[in-house]
Amino acid sequence: MSPNSFNDLKELLEKLPGIGPRQASRFIWAMLDFEPKERENMASLINSLDQHLKRCGECLRAHLATKSPSGDLATVCSFCQPISNRDHSKIMVVERDSDLLNIEKSKIYGGLYHVLGGALDLLEKDEGVRKSIKFLKVRAESGKVKEIILALSPVKLGEFTAGFIEKVFEPFSKPASPAGGSQKLKISRLARGLATGTDLEYADETTLKQAIDNRK
Amino acid sequence: MSPNSFNDLKELLEKLPGIGPRQASRFIWAMLDFEPKERENMASLINSLDQHLKRCGECLRAHLATKSPSGDLATVCSFCQPISNRDHSKIMVVERDSDLLNIEKSKIYGGLYHVLGGALDLLEKDEGVRKSIKFLKVRAESGKVKEIILALSPVKLGEFTAGFIEKVFEPFSKPASPAGGSQKLKISRLARGLATGTDLEYADETTLKQAIDNRK
Amino acid sequence: MSPNSFNDLKELLEKLPGIGPRQASRFIWAMLDFEPKERENMASLINSLDQHLKRCGECLRAHLATKSPSGDLATVCSFCQPISNRDHSKIMVVERDSDLLNIEKSKIYGGLYHVLGGALDLLEKDEGVRKSIKFLKVRAESGKVKEIILALSPVKLGEFTAGFIEKVFEPFSKPASPAGGSQKLKISRLARGLATGTDLEYADETTLKQAIDNRK
Amino acid sequence: MSPNSFNDLKELLEKLPGIGPRQASRFIWAMLDFEPKERENMASLINSLDQHLKRCGECLRAHLATKSPSGDLATVCSFCQPISNRDHSKIMVVERDSDLLNIEKSKIYGGLYHVLGGALDLLEKDEGVRKSIKFLKVRAESGKVKEIILALSPVKLGEFTAGFIEKVFEPFSKPASPAGGSQKLKISRLARGLATGTDLEYADETTLKQAIDNRK
Repeated sequence: MSPNSFNDLKELLEKLPGIGPRQASRFIWAMLDFEPKERENMASLINSLDQHLKRCGECLRAHLATKSPSGDLATVCSFCQPISNRDHSKIMVVERDSDLLNIEKSKIYGGLYHVLGGALDLLEKDEGVRKSIKFLKVRAESGKVKEIILALSPVKLGEFTAGFIEKVFEPFSKPASPAGGSQKLKISRLARGLATGTDLEYADETTLKQAIDNRK
Repeated sequence: MSPNSFNDLKELLEKLPGIGPRQASRFIWAMLDFEPKERENMASLINSLDQHLKRCGECLRAHLATKSPSGDLATVCSFCQPISNRDHSKIMVVERDSDLLNIEKSKIYGGLYHVLGGALDLLEKDEGVRKSIKFLKVRAESGKVKEIILALSPVKLGEFTAGFIEKVFEPFSKPASPAGGSQKLKISRLARGLATGTDLEYADETTLKQAIDNRK
Repeated sequence: MSPNSFNDLKELLEKLPGIGPRQASRFIWAMLDFEPKERENMASLINSLDQHLKRCGECLRAHLATKSPSGDLATVCSFCQPISNRDHSKIMVVERDSDLLNIEKSKIYGGLYHVLGGALDLLEKDEGVRKSIKFLKVRAESGKVKEIILALSPVKLGEFTAGFIEKVFEPFSKPASPAGGSQKLKISRLARGLATGTDLEYADETTLKQAIDNRK
Repeated sequence: MSPNSFNDLKELLEKLPGIGPRQASRFIWAMLDFEPKERENMASLINSLDQHLKRCGECLRAHLATKSPSGDLATVCSFCQPISNRDHSKIMVVERDSDLLNIEKSKIYGGLYHVLGGALDLLEKDEGVRKSIKFLKVRAESGKVKEIILALSPVKLGEFTAGFIEKVFEPFSKPASPAGGSQKLKISRLARGLATGTDLEYADETTLKQAIDNRK
């Protein structure tokens, strides 16, 4: 390992979420004290990461691809497979796999998902996010989908992304024609309001406004 | 000041919100280094605190009582006076003056208030809170009130208190008779959901459930 | 209580250590809900604070003055009284009563103290601190004192103050004359180094330097 | 990647300092979104980590091994090489490479080091740490070393380890014989005391005691 390759590894480790230069160095020291066999395993597992852990061809979430009876790897995750007992009329749009995992943990939602890979950022290209939104449109046009639930972060970029997606789906969310019976697509957002444990004395203005406007 | 009176003062200071024994002692050292005139002023202001700072005879909030033309102190705060341009058909029920002040600061509500003085606590007597709820009932029976908005803390005791008040007002929130035109009283709660800045990955289960259930 | 007197009380409360405008207001609401008798007691105790809680005429620390056999209040605290079994040859100089109390709690020092009332601040007048240093000089000249231990905060102003005091005592800390046997005064500072629980990986440069320089 | 290999990778990532199961999972999602080329590089760099990043044959610190003129990899780090201009009469004993790096950053020490690989832990085997201490003894017996500076964490296990090492070196730290001129080895510890920024009011008892005992 030359000084260059030390820095190369450090830079790659810094791409992991939440890891700065200092912790990246500590990871390298720590791995130096692993058993050689452990380092070898780690390298081989990272190298083959995408062989079985894949993004679903429908909802784009990361999933462990299983083999179909024909022996091929399934391109679609267990949620999206037509035989799954999830509610295929609902798609909840999230930014990241980790959001999805938290919602699944709470067992309060039984529909499908769509993973954007992030929020739109006006200062960056976001090709991945834009592609994912285009693909969401394709999924929605399939006809089975009746509701798209936007579960984006209630922060500036998340709000902007939600607004952008609403605009994309505007044509779909109106009846096709006054006469035609074609059912329109519902676009909803997660409710804004007081979170559990909020102290009213310190609640921010936007949250208070939405809690009052949406009272019921 | 005898050791006893030192401890007496310390105990009274510990009754202030957020003050423990250590800080109470520091307050005493600090006051010892005040100018004698400052200590005298402080004592006199505390002593006469309730002469002009009073709880409103209607909404029970603390207010600086002003003199009426006749020279008497007004028993009702500027919000509750019939000539105020607040919306007298709405009463927002809060636990504390400090909650009210935060909501006023955001300028998103123009109705009246009702200060409970706290939440109901099954382990304590709460006579003050119970009296305040009884008095709220009296205010609601006056006829002008069309909506009571429960703005209690989204925590266990706050939820319990909100449920208790809803029960108290159940008879009022239904039409008097199918034939009678008497308008029913609406009881609402501040919306629950995602607060600004929430990270979906770490949102708690109850908040997620309410954000999904109340989506729109 | 007029609006003015509300603000007057708020301003006085903001002079307490660590109290900002928001908490000062909360203190006023809280005191409004005290029993009238409690407010009256508090006022009277604050008013008479300096009748028995006094600064010692020697070490300037706050103490509960006790009556002497003759019925007068002692002007000197129990530590400084000649009959106390504290070591009268040592004076530890601290910024505040609260520092003194923490050192007393640990029971590792048996000498006398001297309370400065703060650190010297080049941007402020600090007349109190300067007076206290002058008075320390008077105490040191009494002849009994053999060591002055500077226990000032290891921050910029504390270091500056310690340096200033060392300069003041420079003439005393050298032998009066080569021939004369007059004992010189020792000026010491609390040791600098690693505090319990320090993580060497994150220790600051000055602390590391002093820990290495003063190793033993 | 089977479910097993997913868990295998997660477990290996959890061995990195400060990484729990949740962050290990997030690392895997993040790496799934790396370019395939990046994952490949990372794997290869981890795999070859110990080819050039090695522990020095003398001080045991991790270093990028450079080739000697003969083309072989140096087994000794640049500090320990006889021609280095570090002070070879001093060895500072640290627990980890990261402690060493922090001390080097402050540029206040010019001697050699000895990396233990951790502190002794009575509940664990610590074979690595024990071996390192034995090897420190070998280094000390070489004759050039005049001082061993124990720079261990000022916490329970660090203190225990420092005490253990002092015991190991007790025979060396006394003159060989009253007659013999053999110079004894000095064993020192980093000074304990107040760290920069300490608030005397909240300093812990041990730190205060050491700051007073070691005053100067």
